[in-house]
Amino acid sequence: MSAPSEIPFSLDARLATDGLVVGELGLSRVLLMDDLRFPWLILVPRQPGLRELIELSREQQHALLDEINRIAHVLHAITNPDKMNIATLGNVVSQLHVHVIARHVGDAAWPRPVWGIGERVPYTPPERERVLGLLRAGLALPREA
Amino acid sequence: MSAPSEIPFSLDARLATDGLVVGELGLSRVLLMDDLRFPWLILVPRQPGLRELIELSREQQHALLDEINRIAHVLHAITNPDKMNIATLGNVVSQLHVHVIARHVGDAAWPRPVWGIGERVPYTPPERERVLGLLRAGLALPREA
Repeated sequence: MSAPSEIPFSLDARLATDGLVVGELGLSRVLLMDDLRFPWLILVPRQPGLRELIELSREQQHALLDEINRIAHVLHAITNPDKMNIATLGNVVSQLHVHVIARHVGDAAWPRPVWGIGERVPYTPPERERVLGLLRAGLALPREA
Repeated sequence: MSAPSEIPFSLDARLATDGLVVGELGLSRVLLMDDLRFPWLILVPRQPGLRELIELSREQQHALLDEINRIAHVLHAITNPDKMNIATLGNVVSQLHVHVIARHVGDAAWPRPVWGIGERVPYTPPERERVLGLLRAGLALPREA
């Protein structure tokens, strides 16, 4: 195997297009899906070539779970949802990523899952900055990504 | 709080209708979704009144993750999927449950998520027994639920 430094982590192009960088946790990059219809975070473990949760070591999986918890608590506190949706699918974007989505009764997809429902509606710049600021404060991350 | 024995765990009626009992792990009941279109397992932690992953203690969450892993490895070994989908949604059935689904390119929903796609196609009795047998053997569970 090559040393990690020889195969740098690179964010999938689709995730990079659709997501706004909130910041970095110990294992994962945190993205905010740029879609104001749903409060929607994505964790991407910074490990090259990763596709499946079960490819991570048990220790890494537990670290990822703790990061899922951390962002889920913050998102829950900010958005007071009726239900949290947490999922790793990867049928379209194979790079391992975990969705943490705050769902509200009557939102644009309710009660269906959010994937493939209508078109993404990007945040306006002021709203984007407001939401990123709230998330970074909640996660104790630097105010600039 | 009441003692656990006073509020027994009860499986949601929809899960009971759609799922076949594979067996019991330490924390969760394992169900096989009775839908031969997708190799699809569901874990239901046997704790009354549970809705969200973040309502579990950290220790319980990690135990649940280990059970997710265990069933995902067995399902992967049996079905050799192109992608695993792992998710807890609960927009329709609020009782906490975790889907572990083996996806294949070209399956009845590919590349979309499986929820809400077409109608469930129950297993024939012989195929049901065959799949339950494979799963119970893989999980080292009793041959009868």
